[in-house]
Amino acid sequence: MISSLRANLHSSDGLTSLSTLLAPQLKQINECILEKMQSSVALIPQIAGYLISLGGKRIRPLLTVSAAELCGYEGSRHIHLAACVEFIHTATLLHDDVVDESSLRRGMATANTRWNNKASILVGDFLFSRAFELMVADQSLDILRILSKTSSAIAEGEVMQLASSHDLDLNQDTYIKIISSKTACLFSAAAEVGVVVAGGNTPERQVLASFGHNLGIAFQLMDDILDYEADQRKLGKTIGDDFREGQVTLPIILAYEKGIDREFWEKAFVKGSRDEKALEKAIILLNESGILDETKAIAQRFVDDALSCLSSFRDSPLKSALEDLTYFSIQRET
Amino acid sequence: MISSLRANLHSSDGLTSLSTLLAPQLKQINECILEKMQSSVALIPQIAGYLISLGGKRIRPLLTVSAAELCGYEGSRHIHLAACVEFIHTATLLHDDVVDESSLRRGMATANTRWNNKASILVGDFLFSRAFELMVADQSLDILRILSKTSSAIAEGEVMQLASSHDLDLNQDTYIKIISSKTACLFSAAAEVGVVVAGGNTPERQVLASFGHNLGIAFQLMDDILDYEADQRKLGKTIGDDFREGQVTLPIILAYEKGIDREFWEKAFVKGSRDEKALEKAIILLNESGILDETKAIAQRFVDDALSCLSSFRDSPLKSALEDLTYFSIQRET
Repeated sequence: MISSLRANLHSSDGLTSLSTLLAPQLKQINECILEKMQSSVALIPQIAGYLISLGGKRIRPLLTVSAAELCGYEGSRHIHLAACVEFIHTATLLHDDVVDESSLRRGMATANTRWNNKASILVGDFLFSRAFELMVADQSLDILRILSKTSSAIAEGEVMQLASSHDLDLNQDTYIKIISSKTACLFSAAAEVGVVVAGGNTPERQVLASFGHNLGIAFQLMDDILDYEADQRKLGKTIGDDFREGQVTLPIILAYEKGIDREFWEKAFVKGSRDEKALEKAIILLNESGILDETKAIAQRFVDDALSCLSSFRDSPLKSALEDLTYFSIQRET
Repeated sequence: MISSLRANLHSSDGLTSLSTLLAPQLKQINECILEKMQSSVALIPQIAGYLISLGGKRIRPLLTVSAAELCGYEGSRHIHLAACVEFIHTATLLHDDVVDESSLRRGMATANTRWNNKASILVGDFLFSRAFELMVADQSLDILRILSKTSSAIAEGEVMQLASSHDLDLNQDTYIKIISSKTACLFSAAAEVGVVVAGGNTPERQVLASFGHNLGIAFQLMDDILDYEADQRKLGKTIGDDFREGQVTLPIILAYEKGIDREFWEKAFVKGSRDEKALEKAIILLNESGILDETKAIAQRFVDDALSCLSSFRDSPLKSALEDLTYFSIQRET
C-alpha cells in the first residue's frame, strides 16, 4: 500500500520537490499511519486504509515535518505528530463526504458510498480519537492545545458553511473566515506543531503558523476554482461538486457581487435549479467573465503573503521546496 | 434551562438520592456545560443546547464528581472534567442518532430530525473537540490519556456493533465485549477521572474504574430489557427501537441460544421482516419465556460486582447514594 501512496505524490502539483526531498520522512509517516490505524475491529483499518490509500497530497503532515526541520529539528517526534495531523484530516474527510453526500473522491468511490454513512461517521470518530491518543503519547500539552483548538475551529467552520450554503448574500470577508476555520486552520496548526516540536522561538512559531494559514487559504481558493475549470474535464476530474451541493464559494460570491446574471445564480442557489445544464452555464459564465481569473488573483495575494513568511529563514533546499509548493498551489491542475 | 434539566433528574430511577446530595455540583456542571458549548456559530449552541436540555440522567458527570469526592477531593476541577465527560457522551449521542436513524430521544425529536444529519455530525465533532480543549485546559496528561483511549474504545464498540447487527450468531461474551466498549468504558473512565483529580491511590483508581464498568454494563443491559418491556408502553415510552434497527441485543441472543422460535428471529433479523406485528410477537416471546428476567439476572451479577467495588469505602451519604444508584439501575422504568 505504501508504494501506491507515494506514487500519487509525484504529480505536477508543486509537491514534487518537497515530497522528493522528504521522501524518507514521508515513508515513515505512511508507516506510522498504517500502524496506528490498526484496531481489532476489522472494519476500521479497512475503511481508514481505503481512504488513506486513495493517496491524498499528504500536504499537512509534510508541513509539520517541514516546519520542524526548518527550525533545525533532528529527532523523530514530528513523524508521529504528522500522522496525528493526517488522522484529523482523514476524519474530517470521512465526515465531510457524508455531510456533502459525495460519491467520488479522487475519482474513486468515497467510503460512504463503498461502505455506508454509518461506518464513515464512526470510523471518522475513531481516527479523531486515535489522533488524540497519539498526541497524549507525545506528552506535549502545548501541541494538544493547538490541535484540540484547531479541531473545534474546523467543526465551527464546517457548521458555518452548512448554515450559509445557498446564501448568495455571503460576502468575501465572511467566506474567507469560513475557509480559515474549515481549511487553513489545520494547515496553520500543522506547521505550528512542527515548530513546537523543534523548540522554535515565538517569532518562528508565529511566522510558520501564518505561512500555513496563507497557504491553506490559497489551496482552498484553488480548489474552489478547479471545481469550475473547464479544463478539468479533460483530466477526467469530476467538477461541479460545489455547485451540485449548492455551496456558495468565492467565484459565485464575486459573480453575484458584480451582477453577472444574478437571476441565474438566484435560480440556481436559492430556488435550487442546479441540474447539469445549469452547471454548464455556470462554468461558461465564470470562465468567460474572468471571475475565475479574479479569484486566482485573490489567491495569489495569499500565496505572496505565504512566501513572505518564509523570507526570514536562510536559504536551503527545504525552503526552496516550500516556496515551490506555495507558488504552485495555485498553478496546480488537481 | 437549568431548572428544567434538574427537574428531569428527580425521577424514580435511583438517581434521586445522588442528584439531591450533589445538587450544588450538578448545578455547577450544568452551568459549565452551557458556558463551554458556546460558539460564535449560532447553530452550535442551538443544537447542543437542545440535546442537553432534553435532560439526560447526567449519570456520567455525576460519577466523576462522586468518585472525586469519595476520595476526599474538595476542589473544583472535577466540575470541568465532569462537563468534558458529558460533552463526549453528547457527541456520541448526536452521532448515534444519525447512525441508528433514530427520530425520538426521551420522547422528543432527535437533533437529526429537528435539524438534519449534517448538523448533527458536525456539532458532534465540535462537542468532541471542545471536550479535549477543556481537558487540555485542565492540564492532566493522565486524564487526557484515559479519555482519549475511551473515545477510541467507544468508536470501536460502535463499529463492532454496526458490523454485528443482524448477526444472530453473536454470543454473550462478544456482546458484553461490545457494550463494554460502547457504553461501560465511559462510565468507567468517568469514575476513574474523578479518582485522578482527587489524587487517589492505585487501588482506589482500579476499584472505582471497575465500579463504573460494572454499573455501565448493568445500565446497558437494562436499556436492552426496557426496549422490549411491555410495561414501557404504559409510560408512553417508545419501545422496540433496537428491534426496528435490527440490533441483536442480549435478550435476542439468549432467546436464540435457547431455541425459542428460532425461525421467527431468523425471519426478523436475517431476512429483515421487522414490522410492528413482528415487534409485538418479539415482545410477547421475550416477556412470556422469561428471557427478560434472565437478562435481568445477568445484569444483577454486574450490579453485585459494582456494589462490592464500593465496599472498601467507609460509610457515608455519598456511598449510600451510589449504592442506591447501582441497586436501582436495573429496577428503573426509564
